[in-house]
Amino acid sequence: MLTYSFQNMGKDSLYEYLYKCIRSDILAGRIRPGEKLPSKRSFARNLGVSVVTVESAYAQLAAEGYIDSRPRSGYYAAHISQELLTPSGAGPREPGPAPTRRELPERAEGEEAAEEKTEIDLVSGSTDPAQFPFTIWARLMRTVLADRRRELMARAPGGGVPALRQAIADYLRQYQGMDIGWEQVIVGAGTEYLYSLLIQLLGRDKIYALEDPGYGKTARVYESHGVETVYIPMDQAGVQTGRLRESEAAVMHISPSHHFPTGVTTSISRRYELLAWAGERPERCIIEDDYDCEFRLAGRPIPSLQSIDRQGRVIYMNTFTRSLTPTIRISYMVLPKRLGEEFQRKLGFYSCTVPNFEQYTLAEFIRRGYFEKQINRMRNYYRARRDELLDALGKSPLGEQVSIEGADAGLHFLMRVKTDRTDGELTERAAGQGVKLSCLSQYCHGTVPDRSVRGQVIVNYPGLTPGRADETVRRLERAWL
Amino acid sequence: MLTYSFQNMGKDSLYEYLYKCIRSDILAGRIRPGEKLPSKRSFARNLGVSVVTVESAYAQLAAEGYIDSRPRSGYYAAHISQELLTPSGAGPREPGPAPTRRELPERAEGEEAAEEKTEIDLVSGSTDPAQFPFTIWARLMRTVLADRRRELMARAPGGGVPALRQAIADYLRQYQGMDIGWEQVIVGAGTEYLYSLLIQLLGRDKIYALEDPGYGKTARVYESHGVETVYIPMDQAGVQTGRLRESEAAVMHISPSHHFPTGVTTSISRRYELLAWAGERPERCIIEDDYDCEFRLAGRPIPSLQSIDRQGRVIYMNTFTRSLTPTIRISYMVLPKRLGEEFQRKLGFYSCTVPNFEQYTLAEFIRRGYFEKQINRMRNYYRARRDELLDALGKSPLGEQVSIEGADAGLHFLMRVKTDRTDGELTERAAGQGVKLSCLSQYCHGTVPDRSVRGQVIVNYPGLTPGRADETVRRLERAWL
Repeated sequence: MLTYSFQNMGKDSLYEYLYKCIRSDILAGRIRPGEKLPSKRSFARNLGVSVVTVESAYAQLAAEGYIDSRPRSGYYAAHISQELLTPSGAGPREPGPAPTRRELPERAEGEEAAEEKTEIDLVSGSTDPAQFPFTIWARLMRTVLADRRRELMARAPGGGVPALRQAIADYLRQYQGMDIGWEQVIVGAGTEYLYSLLIQLLGRDKIYALEDPGYGKTARVYESHGVETVYIPMDQAGVQTGRLRESEAAVMHISPSHHFPTGVTTSISRRYELLAWAGERPERCIIEDDYDCEFRLAGRPIPSLQSIDRQGRVIYMNTFTRSLTPTIRISYMVLPKRLGEEFQRKLGFYSCTVPNFEQYTLAEFIRRGYFEKQINRMRNYYRARRDELLDALGKSPLGEQVSIEGADAGLHFLMRVKTDRTDGELTERAAGQGVKLSCLSQYCHGTVPDRSVRGQVIVNYPGLTPGRADETVRRLERAWL
Repeated sequence: MLTYSFQNMGKDSLYEYLYKCIRSDILAGRIRPGEKLPSKRSFARNLGVSVVTVESAYAQLAAEGYIDSRPRSGYYAAHISQELLTPSGAGPREPGPAPTRRELPERAEGEEAAEEKTEIDLVSGSTDPAQFPFTIWARLMRTVLADRRRELMARAPGGGVPALRQAIADYLRQYQGMDIGWEQVIVGAGTEYLYSLLIQLLGRDKIYALEDPGYGKTARVYESHGVETVYIPMDQAGVQTGRLRESEAAVMHISPSHHFPTGVTTSISRRYELLAWAGERPERCIIEDDYDCEFRLAGRPIPSLQSIDRQGRVIYMNTFTRSLTPTIRISYMVLPKRLGEEFQRKLGFYSCTVPNFEQYTLAEFIRRGYFEKQINRMRNYYRARRDELLDALGKSPLGEQVSIEGADAGLHFLMRVKTDRTDGELTERAAGQGVKLSCLSQYCHGTVPDRSVRGQVIVNYPGLTPGRADETVRRLERAWL
């Protein structure tokens, strides 16, 4: 049986260390593709650790696609082509430790009783701005106003002020294992705006590939800029690279950590296949939209595609609007070095769409550790919202009629409803009871079979007010049972 | 001699009323094109008003192009084609009274002594963020956070939150005589971003005409979006419509109130010619960039092209980033009704690039009258900066070598230098003394003769620190004398 000494584990937790050992053996071929891993119970006994530790390590490896779970059989090492791992031959860079999770008190939960009649929105996924530490933010604003008066007046580089870009680069290095320079970070007012910069940077003559199912707005942004798009179907491991290869696309736009709306996490072997595809032609690249990577509610954060890219083909994107507060509209992208220089040359003339003042404030917010605290606080807040909702479903007769998928990967989950009703009926009847919901089928664009997506409701719960989960489920009972 | 009774003047000042009477007579043809107006002195005696009153009315009429001044001869009614005034035949709509100018104390002026060695930037024109009433803004932010929690979470229309758009529409109606609905107002993070929305709205297949001389960045935005541009030369009355007509352009992008960098105010007859050009073909339109209309330092604000447009061909643009503070990045455009509906249909899917929170705060700031107060305060502040600089020039031997143009129209003026030095030498020698300046020739794009623009230095003074004018002039003496 596999065995590991826990002598060199450093600051890692038991499960993190075990996860890294197994991953390293899989990448090095010491555990061969298809090889069965020890059962959780016997492995735990053998290593002298708890079953939970092994379980957590396996869950993380499975989430990242290093191992596959076969029902009633166990875990097996996945088939990761060795060619895909060359030229460097190395595995993914080690991301830093996940931010520690401090338990902060939740908001008072009584005040919502009067809102019972109002709509419950499980579509938009917008965050309650009252969760934002406004007092700290206002204090930092005053600090910036006092200390940075000269810089506030100066024209900032088009990509954003260096202080913020450096703070973002440092954060990504520490928490996401991304080894980048601040010049590679480009700041802008929202990801849609960054898409438009990318179109100008990469060229309007290229075909942009999008995931199916997928968020329809992304396609609209591209099309509104007169750019040709093509849909590539997804399966359980991510976007189908075979189909991508058949297309003429030069740019693939994906969300590998947590796809919206399917919740799929792109497997590690699919990630390497995508990188291989990008490496085949000089003009190809991948846009990795990591919109809610901070909110994986169980397990360690998954290494970004950017962090395992050795050829400078991945453009990484994320937003503070979602992770922090809709109060600000700040997103950023990380360009490969070569594209970063090209950006400076071709698009550096633009004024940054985010005011300097807000950029310096956010830089201080990150630098002083408030961002990390806020992320942890919000992760707990969202976990509580999700658990409340899942508990309420479990206690309801509705619980028998639904199964939940992807509840750990980020801030939405899929609810598969056993029903003869059409998707249109499901959402309309929910709306009739004051619950706004959408179905997976609404995000389909014709390349995946209809029957595979029917009856799957998307539950986007960040906007759910504390204490309203029972009411939400009662309304759905009235709508659907 | 012309005579007017001052019986129906209502709330207008003497000079405003006189200005309106003469303008109305010119538009109605009662004063014929080319007709000489009475001399200021005799007209004043005849009307029983002061010479200053007549002088102010004439200056305003001249600035707007209703009358021409001929050196050592007097004022003459301009040639405004009557056809151009039809179909409506009416003159421009009356703008409301100008905001009253309250004298607010300036900031302490001693604290800059230590900065003597630092660069003096007369190019970027950025505003000191410390001039912004941050305490009021922060208080309004807290009010919004308390009162608007629900709206802050809701998805706002792509064009911006209705509250802000209504506040802008009300302000424009009151102070600029623009009769518009809030749906016509589109809010975005900076004018460059709004250009990109306009390209998506109007189409990439059209040719966009730009002023020569002109701000080079505008062209770069268009070109970066793959759109064809053409330069149209300017003369003292504005962009040359004859040359515009010879081009294939469908969209004319201009700043008629105060052109950067020439300082030219487009004459009223040229305005009607432009509107006539736009009306000739269904696809034509005019983008009116009114970037510093609030900062006309003498006379009444000039009616916008939008306010005299009867055919829905003018897209009006302005920004709060310049008028209020670089602390926020909020610009807006006013679309003709038909384009407003098209925007909603084609581009309404976009998320607004300005966060809801900032939009509601600005809406309150305008609604409660703080914007008007701030504009007045800043107008005084800028006038003081300009006067300080002009006084310092007057007292300096340099004063003999330069003549000043366009010092009233907005926040920059032209300084014509009597010199044999090239423009490159002028700016380089100034830079050597720590003064950043640019020359008119740097903004030329090949359609105007070089000799006509040589030796004209642009002085963009908003960023000049109080009390540093003498130092600025001393440095320029060392550089140029």
